[in-house]
Amino acid sequence: MTATDTPVNNGVNVAALLGAREALTSAPEAAQFEWRATCEWQNGTHSNSVVEGFFGLGEEQVHNKTYSFDTDHPELFASEDIGATPVEYVLVGLAGCLTAGVAAVAQNREIQLRRVSATLEGSMDVRGILGIDSDVRNGFGAIKVTYDIDADATPDEIKALVAQSQKRSAVYDIITNPTDVQVEVNAT
Amino acid sequence: MTATDTPVNNGVNVAALLGAREALTSAPEAAQFEWRATCEWQNGTHSNSVVEGFFGLGEEQVHNKTYSFDTDHPELFASEDIGATPVEYVLVGLAGCLTAGVAAVAQNREIQLRRVSATLEGSMDVRGILGIDSDVRNGFGAIKVTYDIDADATPDEIKALVAQSQKRSAVYDIITNPTDVQVEVNAT
Repeated sequence: MTATDTPVNNGVNVAALLGAREALTSAPEAAQFEWRATCEWQNGTHSNSVVEGFFGLGEEQVHNKTYSFDTDHPELFASEDIGATPVEYVLVGLAGCLTAGVAAVAQNREIQLRRVSATLEGSMDVRGILGIDSDVRNGFGAIKVTYDIDADATPDEIKALVAQSQKRSAVYDIITNPTDVQVEVNAT
Repeated sequence: MTATDTPVNNGVNVAALLGAREALTSAPEAAQFEWRATCEWQNGTHSNSVVEGFFGLGEEQVHNKTYSFDTDHPELFASEDIGATPVEYVLVGLAGCLTAGVAAVAQNREIQLRRVSATLEGSMDVRGILGIDSDVRNGFGAIKVTYDIDADATPDEIKALVAQSQKRSAVYDIITNPTDVQVEVNAT
């Protein structure tokens, strides 16, 4: 079988993405998005956050459904472990972002993916968040991502997929570069 | 009723946290944690990530249950919207981290919380991720967090809770400061 007999299909509509790129090149105002979450404290370290609406293409948008997420701390920090920890959510975001990018880039390069799996490990010295040592940062010391990819391509071509995904990944950028966070408080 | 009649209870075991702080001060090796997620590509931009085990206090640990998360892109990017977007997961992580901190600090300061809710808005110029303009970053331009807090305290005391939570928040640190991410690829 040749490539023309078996069209590559990773489930990514690259034509639509290229169309969006062309459309937004001449309409930069439509490219201004706002992503949102709302959070409601439940008890202790347990909160519930909801993701539903966002803004993009010049108007309010909604997801197909409302996504609900519980965050909590584990029992070894005397919490109830009702949800994954907040830092694990960051790892999930990074995994999802890089992996979606791998699929999109593979589609654009006509490389058929068979399996893509990743393991993410974020090291943390918890003396930071516990306030033991002010020289220890609160966040991850570093993150290691290990991909195992089975695809119709050479190892170098496969590695290049991941490298290109890193270049265009929103979450990879958020983690590796600083972002301004403004916090306002309405107290009643 | 006086404060002694109604002990403050936000559901956070501050005594245990202070005990952990004391214990880890003299055992810094036990404070070395590793948080993990594993990700399996499903199709298109849809992946599923699992959070289950982590390392801490010198040994392997497991959550009470396995947490499973779907990440995807919305339909306006020609995807199926099977899960929240990766960047929304980052917002959820930030919300959960800051809010857990507010509860813990309030407990330590003997301030009874009645309600804590937050809205997070992350602006993004998607010309970055679409590769339209290399001067536009891929991640959030900025994040705005708005807290509405009802508590038995003055507005200044309530604002100070949030400020202290920011100082000790892992995810706030991850977003506002750079973190090294190493990516390895095993290609088959």
